[in-house]
Amino acid sequence: EEDVRFDIKEKEDTVSITVVGASGDLAKKKIFPALFALYYEDCLPKHFTVFGYARSKMTDAELRVMISRTLTCRIDKSENCGEKMEQFLGRCFYHSGQYDSDEGFAELDTKLKVHEVGRVSNRLFYLSIPPNIFIDAVRCASTSASSANGWTRVIVEKPFGRDSESSAALTRDLKQYLVEDQIFRIDHYLGKELVENLSVLRFSNLIFEPLWSRQYIRNVQFIFSENFGTEGRGGYFDNYGIIRDIMQNHLLQILALFAMETPVSLDAEDIRNEKVKVLRSMKPLQLDDVVVGQYKGHTEGGVTYPAYTDDKTVPKGSLTPTFAAAALFINNARWDGVPFLMKAGKALGSKRAEIRVQFRHVPGNLFKTKLGPDHDRSTNELVIRVQPDEAIYLKINNKVPGLSMRLDRSNLNLHYAARYSKEIPDAYERLLLDAIGGERRLFIRSDELDAAWALFTPLLKELEEKKVEPELYLYGSEGPVKAHHLAYRYKVQWGDSDNEHR
Amino acid sequence: EEDVRFDIKEKEDTVSITVVGASGDLAKKKIFPALFALYYEDCLPKHFTVFGYARSKMTDAELRVMISRTLTCRIDKSENCGEKMEQFLGRCFYHSGQYDSDEGFAELDTKLKVHEVGRVSNRLFYLSIPPNIFIDAVRCASTSASSANGWTRVIVEKPFGRDSESSAALTRDLKQYLVEDQIFRIDHYLGKELVENLSVLRFSNLIFEPLWSRQYIRNVQFIFSENFGTEGRGGYFDNYGIIRDIMQNHLLQILALFAMETPVSLDAEDIRNEKVKVLRSMKPLQLDDVVVGQYKGHTEGGVTYPAYTDDKTVPKGSLTPTFAAAALFINNARWDGVPFLMKAGKALGSKRAEIRVQFRHVPGNLFKTKLGPDHDRSTNELVIRVQPDEAIYLKINNKVPGLSMRLDRSNLNLHYAARYSKEIPDAYERLLLDAIGGERRLFIRSDELDAAWALFTPLLKELEEKKVEPELYLYGSEGPVKAHHLAYRYKVQWGDSDNEHR
Amino acid sequence: EEDVRFDIKEKEDTVSITVVGASGDLAKKKIFPALFALYYEDCLPKHFTVFGYARSKMTDAELRVMISRTLTCRIDKSENCGEKMEQFLGRCFYHSGQYDSDEGFAELDTKLKVHEVGRVSNRLFYLSIPPNIFIDAVRCASTSASSANGWTRVIVEKPFGRDSESSAALTRDLKQYLVEDQIFRIDHYLGKELVENLSVLRFSNLIFEPLWSRQYIRNVQFIFSENFGTEGRGGYFDNYGIIRDIMQNHLLQILALFAMETPVSLDAEDIRNEKVKVLRSMKPLQLDDVVVGQYKGHTEGGVTYPAYTDDKTVPKGSLTPTFAAAALFINNARWDGVPFLMKAGKALGSKRAEIRVQFRHVPGNLFKTKLGPDHDRSTNELVIRVQPDEAIYLKINNKVPGLSMRLDRSNLNLHYAARYSKEIPDAYERLLLDAIGGERRLFIRSDELDAAWALFTPLLKELEEKKVEPELYLYGSEGPVKAHHLAYRYKVQWGDSDNEHR
Amino acid sequence: EEDVRFDIKEKEDTVSITVVGASGDLAKKKIFPALFALYYEDCLPKHFTVFGYARSKMTDAELRVMISRTLTCRIDKSENCGEKMEQFLGRCFYHSGQYDSDEGFAELDTKLKVHEVGRVSNRLFYLSIPPNIFIDAVRCASTSASSANGWTRVIVEKPFGRDSESSAALTRDLKQYLVEDQIFRIDHYLGKELVENLSVLRFSNLIFEPLWSRQYIRNVQFIFSENFGTEGRGGYFDNYGIIRDIMQNHLLQILALFAMETPVSLDAEDIRNEKVKVLRSMKPLQLDDVVVGQYKGHTEGGVTYPAYTDDKTVPKGSLTPTFAAAALFINNARWDGVPFLMKAGKALGSKRAEIRVQFRHVPGNLFKTKLGPDHDRSTNELVIRVQPDEAIYLKINNKVPGLSMRLDRSNLNLHYAARYSKEIPDAYERLLLDAIGGERRLFIRSDELDAAWALFTPLLKELEEKKVEPELYLYGSEGPVKAHHLAYRYKVQWGDSDNEHR
Repeated sequence: EEDVRFDIKEKEDTVSITVVGASGDLAKKKIFPALFALYYEDCLPKHFTVFGYARSKMTDAELRVMISRTLTCRIDKSENCGEKMEQFLGRCFYHSGQYDSDEGFAELDTKLKVHEVGRVSNRLFYLSIPPNIFIDAVRCASTSASSANGWTRVIVEKPFGRDSESSAALTRDLKQYLVEDQIFRIDHYLGKELVENLSVLRFSNLIFEPLWSRQYIRNVQFIFSENFGTEGRGGYFDNYGIIRDIMQNHLLQILALFAMETPVSLDAEDIRNEKVKVLRSMKPLQLDDVVVGQYKGHTEGGVTYPAYTDDKTVPKGSLTPTFAAAALFINNARWDGVPFLMKAGKALGSKRAEIRVQFRHVPGNLFKTKLGPDHDRSTNELVIRVQPDEAIYLKINNKVPGLSMRLDRSNLNLHYAARYSKEIPDAYERLLLDAIGGERRLFIRSDELDAAWALFTPLLKELEEKKVEPELYLYGSEGPVKAHHLAYRYKVQWGDSDNEHR
Repeated sequence: EEDVRFDIKEKEDTVSITVVGASGDLAKKKIFPALFALYYEDCLPKHFTVFGYARSKMTDAELRVMISRTLTCRIDKSENCGEKMEQFLGRCFYHSGQYDSDEGFAELDTKLKVHEVGRVSNRLFYLSIPPNIFIDAVRCASTSASSANGWTRVIVEKPFGRDSESSAALTRDLKQYLVEDQIFRIDHYLGKELVENLSVLRFSNLIFEPLWSRQYIRNVQFIFSENFGTEGRGGYFDNYGIIRDIMQNHLLQILALFAMETPVSLDAEDIRNEKVKVLRSMKPLQLDDVVVGQYKGHTEGGVTYPAYTDDKTVPKGSLTPTFAAAALFINNARWDGVPFLMKAGKALGSKRAEIRVQFRHVPGNLFKTKLGPDHDRSTNELVIRVQPDEAIYLKINNKVPGLSMRLDRSNLNLHYAARYSKEIPDAYERLLLDAIGGERRLFIRSDELDAAWALFTPLLKELEEKKVEPELYLYGSEGPVKAHHLAYRYKVQWGDSDNEHR
Repeated sequence: EEDVRFDIKEKEDTVSITVVGASGDLAKKKIFPALFALYYEDCLPKHFTVFGYARSKMTDAELRVMISRTLTCRIDKSENCGEKMEQFLGRCFYHSGQYDSDEGFAELDTKLKVHEVGRVSNRLFYLSIPPNIFIDAVRCASTSASSANGWTRVIVEKPFGRDSESSAALTRDLKQYLVEDQIFRIDHYLGKELVENLSVLRFSNLIFEPLWSRQYIRNVQFIFSENFGTEGRGGYFDNYGIIRDIMQNHLLQILALFAMETPVSLDAEDIRNEKVKVLRSMKPLQLDDVVVGQYKGHTEGGVTYPAYTDDKTVPKGSLTPTFAAAALFINNARWDGVPFLMKAGKALGSKRAEIRVQFRHVPGNLFKTKLGPDHDRSTNELVIRVQPDEAIYLKINNKVPGLSMRLDRSNLNLHYAARYSKEIPDAYERLLLDAIGGERRLFIRSDELDAAWALFTPLLKELEEKKVEPELYLYGSEGPVKAHHLAYRYKVQWGDSDNEHR
Repeated sequence: EEDVRFDIKEKEDTVSITVVGASGDLAKKKIFPALFALYYEDCLPKHFTVFGYARSKMTDAELRVMISRTLTCRIDKSENCGEKMEQFLGRCFYHSGQYDSDEGFAELDTKLKVHEVGRVSNRLFYLSIPPNIFIDAVRCASTSASSANGWTRVIVEKPFGRDSESSAALTRDLKQYLVEDQIFRIDHYLGKELVENLSVLRFSNLIFEPLWSRQYIRNVQFIFSENFGTEGRGGYFDNYGIIRDIMQNHLLQILALFAMETPVSLDAEDIRNEKVKVLRSMKPLQLDDVVVGQYKGHTEGGVTYPAYTDDKTVPKGSLTPTFAAAALFINNARWDGVPFLMKAGKALGSKRAEIRVQFRHVPGNLFKTKLGPDHDRSTNELVIRVQPDEAIYLKINNKVPGLSMRLDRSNLNLHYAARYSKEIPDAYERLLLDAIGGERRLFIRSDELDAAWALFTPLLKELEEKKVEPELYLYGSEGPVKAHHLAYRYKVQWGDSDNEHR
């Protein structure tokens, strides 16, 4: 029953973490800093080594310089931060090789063995490389650099294919070299603090579970917005679009966690079983239930905001959506008829990721005449703000203090920054730690991935075959107007659209 | 459907408010200031007059001086405060007379008529006098100073008798001169902002009503504590004791409001009907389910705290309880088996009045092993702090941010002072305004009073007949230890006893 | 707590029951037989006397002959039936007088006193006379024939006015001579065995109450049909119509009993309080939500069925509805949005009175594809058949035994005739016994009556002012087709319209 | 979505059913008759062959004679019964061989091929042989008689081991030769009509699911009783005892079906997933929560009933229980704290298998004083009688018709024999048909079996190690008195112990 995460440190085994694609952006910005943070927090195993692997030639020292630029201590004025950094960097090494080179990985294997000095050897490969070379790297790592006497695990990053077929092919290929238990498909949203907290809220508090169903919940919204565009890096994005980039994975994963039945235990397999059940209870998205948009440029107050297609890395005339909204339905006893709305976009007015649970109207409401004219605004709402500025708040109606009987909506509020002084760890830290500890709860299983693609693939094909034109929206705006129409169609409103009542 | 309170101002009728017992403490500290606050807030009728009536000889000017000492403006640096005070005092007058003198009231009548100048006359008598002269004053006011063409209403303050018999006698006597609609029995706790808010919370929010029953609520606690003793004014108190002084009225009224079924409307009669139903569903208190205490003196840090019986106005050897705790039960479908605990005491460690709703344990709790050893402390709790420092908060379990899965209890919090900048009106303001407006919701009907006494009378008699000795507790402490035993007996804990988790 | 009904027999008091209008149909068919049945069952007080009072001249012996023609023993071959009849008839007497004659009633008083022989005197007057002479009779009975030392009660039969105004006037007039507690307004439907059983079903069984709300119930239907027309006695009926004759009283009373909240006790006042709350939570009927019909004649198989307007006692061109269907709504937390459908008609295809509770569809139904095409027919239904052939049955889906997975709808059935061998007493017996015992539960209080009229009066006026033409339907048919449209409008179907699935 | 069962007939494939152990009792009494019944009902595939395989020498003709003795037509006077029998017998063949003989099975393979005449070959082996030769037979069938181009399936009968270890060993051995999908572990109780109906009742009716939890259900009872003892055939039984013979499989399987969460679909894997979740949520049985008994002989009315140990096939002094009662608990949100009671025994007073769902008391029951003194007897109960004489009934409280307010308990009843004229098929027919159709819903998966043994193994070991002596009970009685104590301990009563209220 004990927390698996803290068993790690006690072991005499070695763990070697190889970041394949060590010179890439993700590695520099997220992976190495997360590894250092874990080290700083004393969460890594006693005997660990970090290896960078990439095509470029580099010395260990050069790698350390490169890494060191992005390391930060959790709290700026932390004690011993510099000293700890030195120690960490001293355990970082580099090996140069091609991603499809058995030789390169065999050489890596030799170096790893030196560091393992005969201890039980556990090896984690973090594949931070483009999808087209995934399988080659997996093959080489598996064939030439697997652990002989401990475990070998591979973390892969999205994209996991572009549709059901390509995803299934990728899985099939991975399984030539790895068994299910060795594959750690990362969705870093699942590592977010408040996403982790979702199950705690529901299952450790008596008061939420009775409300968690169609009987009381009118709709649930999953909102992701960025306040910047592709900014010259649209090449990859244009091939995928916002639906594949955000919805089909991050938002859908959160939806599944949100909506699942109580698992039989907190074990990874039990939770993932329940998530798959949710996905299987949903019917594939209909074009009717989807809105796509693309941002356009404009000039305001002397500042010029570019259109998506102004990005030089984006093909002229691209129809790739930078915004999408969708309504999904779960056909089971708990959620039958409840719209699950999703919205994701780039170049919008704000940056946020949140879950909004809108409750139904009070039947036979005694206070009907005391509430404002917009009754939808007087229903209860539970907001879980995943980022930035983590918070949970519950909107309730309340008597305005004073001699008259006037009601307004106040928040029962839990603001993390105010309540918890410690900095909240980055999602990558949690996920790396879990991968090292073998905790699979927050990683995506093959059947989950299949079920997720099954929901989106027909829609994605239809969008592409019919060349559906996205609605253009201003950079920095609220996004396409049709997103509101979609909500109205199901008699609800987006919870984030009314600034006063956020 | 409109708020009755703001109809008042439009009328051409006059309203004359006579404070009978004008020179008493309550009049000076609460009634006149509340009337001024209403005036300052522009809530009084256009044509109003305030009369003080008492035995002592005084001029109008003297009354005004007396009153003016206790008037304050809501916000200290309010605009025009001085000017408004002058205007208000200009409408205050005094008449001296005996409380049982028809003549005195007839003279008052003559004076009132002068001020009414032929307009429709409405008269409100606020009886701020000892109980033994209630009836005489009511008789005289009714016979000699009733309105001829408008309404006449009488506000009476507790005590409303000492038991079922004396209360019934009092009601019978009042009804010789007044009909039910003219009697306004005040329980100023019902005028408290958060007590008023109770119905709003339950009935205008979807999320509370489903939880409001035995299925989810383990127990409810009504806690009243004062951090001072009788302080030389124990004469009145000793005759009544804490049960009659606080429990049988204030706490029981709040319990009835808390536990009632949804009324058919917000009308006074409908709400009071439901409250009576609650009281009738309860069985009379058993001695077994009651703990009584009395504070004793001690010296600490050089300060000496007196015992109750050190008070010179208290008879030596008095057994009057200054503390009581009780467990009550409501035998209906909603509350069958749920303990409603009450606790009220003087000379305790803190000053507060609050309602604590403790929810049940989570069945089949997945997080059992992640919660602390005291599972009772990890259940949800809704706290409604009536005074001081009004607040509503909901204790929930939450993941402590960080890499491990640790839970703690946080508050979803609504702190009134932070949310609402305006000062919260005193309960007396609301109640006076309601009496003027004819709104009876917050006043106690005769059948309510009967039902309330029926619950407590057998116990009170038994305590007195058996000369039950109160447990002595230190001035400034938490009160008798037996109060904890009472809670344990029903497998619960007092929510206010654990400082860390308040 | 004991059953009031069986206290009656023990008392030494006398009870005199005067049937005013003793020669009328109701008296002969229902009242005297019910009195005899009570006597036969040994339920009447030891000292009782029955008096017939009417205008026609008759001897006691003639009355006895008249009565004896309609008396039957409960079970045909009952023991001692003849003997019991003789005893009963020996306690029946007659007095002739005008209904507005103080003298007549004073003479009656004298005769009653003879029979009372100095015992405590209790007097029950059953007014079985036309409405226009109600008040006169009440005045005379009250003034000249009241009991001097016991109770005096008056049973009145519908019609209780034609609308809010006339009903209020009638109540006002009654209250000149009687207080509320003396007035027993009879609605004989409330005395029906299965209507009595409604509260038992709901409140003594755990399994029904959780289902008794908008969450599970899609709609409720109250159906009354007769398979004969006015048959030459349309004079009275034409002045009232089916809405006043059946809906506004019988069906609405049953609806209120069905839908009420749990009363605080089984006492009459507590139950009637809850019924009034239901009525007050409803909004007045809209013309839109009502269908009216009138039967027309036709010839089939050589038999000719007359039209309503063929009845000689009915004015030519009468627009009086002989059929009505209506949709009503209760605006409270339990029933918000649930259609309560009513249907009442004469000259229809069958004779029945029943309550049908149709439950909602199963959300996320796993067996969707196994159910027939008409999903409405596969929802659960609880049927309470009030008459004839009393029964309760619950329609459930069930696997058809056999190797395939086919479902059909079966009944969980409680058929009274099969379960209970004893004959079910007539409603009048119960009501007479209750009136004698002072049990008011099944009688209609003045405020109930007001609330009932308030719902129907605007509609009735509109129907009359707009001269709304009823849809004609064939004698012996299912009634107007528009009744189906009304149901469809609220997405439901009449439960009695599908013979196969009754 | 279509019913898999009726696809079978359309196929051109052949299906060969080999009954291994063809001369045994089960084969004669159940398997061959079930196969014929399926044939008679036209449910078998077009091209099917039945082979008997056993050690004894027999000709095809002798087999046919042997089989024909036990064949019956569903309805005695069925049309063409004789003709159909002839046809069926014509497709039955015999092959003699050892169970561990590869040669024997290779010869069988040759014969099967002759009948398959080149069509796609599907082969079902029904192992009706003792457990000690299971694996040998499986090995031979798999190695030497598998289908080359279609499916090969093996039906195995209990016992599936004696405890966790032996069961795991058996599974391990089976999996050397078969994959999970080929193994059909039969529990014929899962094929019973009313067990099949359990899921239909719960999931296709709105009214049951809301009641299906700890909130409304006080306890659930699974009762199995036989009115005869081992009767000279105790050899096998004595090695297993009633717990292994009935509880750990039949009753536990029904419990899991009863208590499971809604599966995501009706597919076999989805249902079995949910059943495993139930088993995993239970804690292993404690000795404290178990009662064991053994029947003893007596003489009554001249008839002598033997003791278990009088059976010559039973070792003297055997402690093997012929009766057991147990209380189990499911630690999940739905069932936390609800006792699931089981009772199984031989040589009891009646023969029955039933599920009894006892509902909780009505909170705040208005009718408390109207119910009898034994309040447990006035709670609702749902009874599902699996055998004999299939029925479902719901006990409800009801007003006894008549003038007083007396309640009694009546049944809402669905009696199968009255409602459905067709004979109910034997469980073996359903299960054979499912095995042929590849429908695994009613068969036990390996992880289910593991979980089931995990619950019982510690108890079984403790019973044996401690040599716990069973309580002796009279042949034909109600069983050990301690079974009542066990129920009382959890404040419930066995539903079958009160003849009046069955």
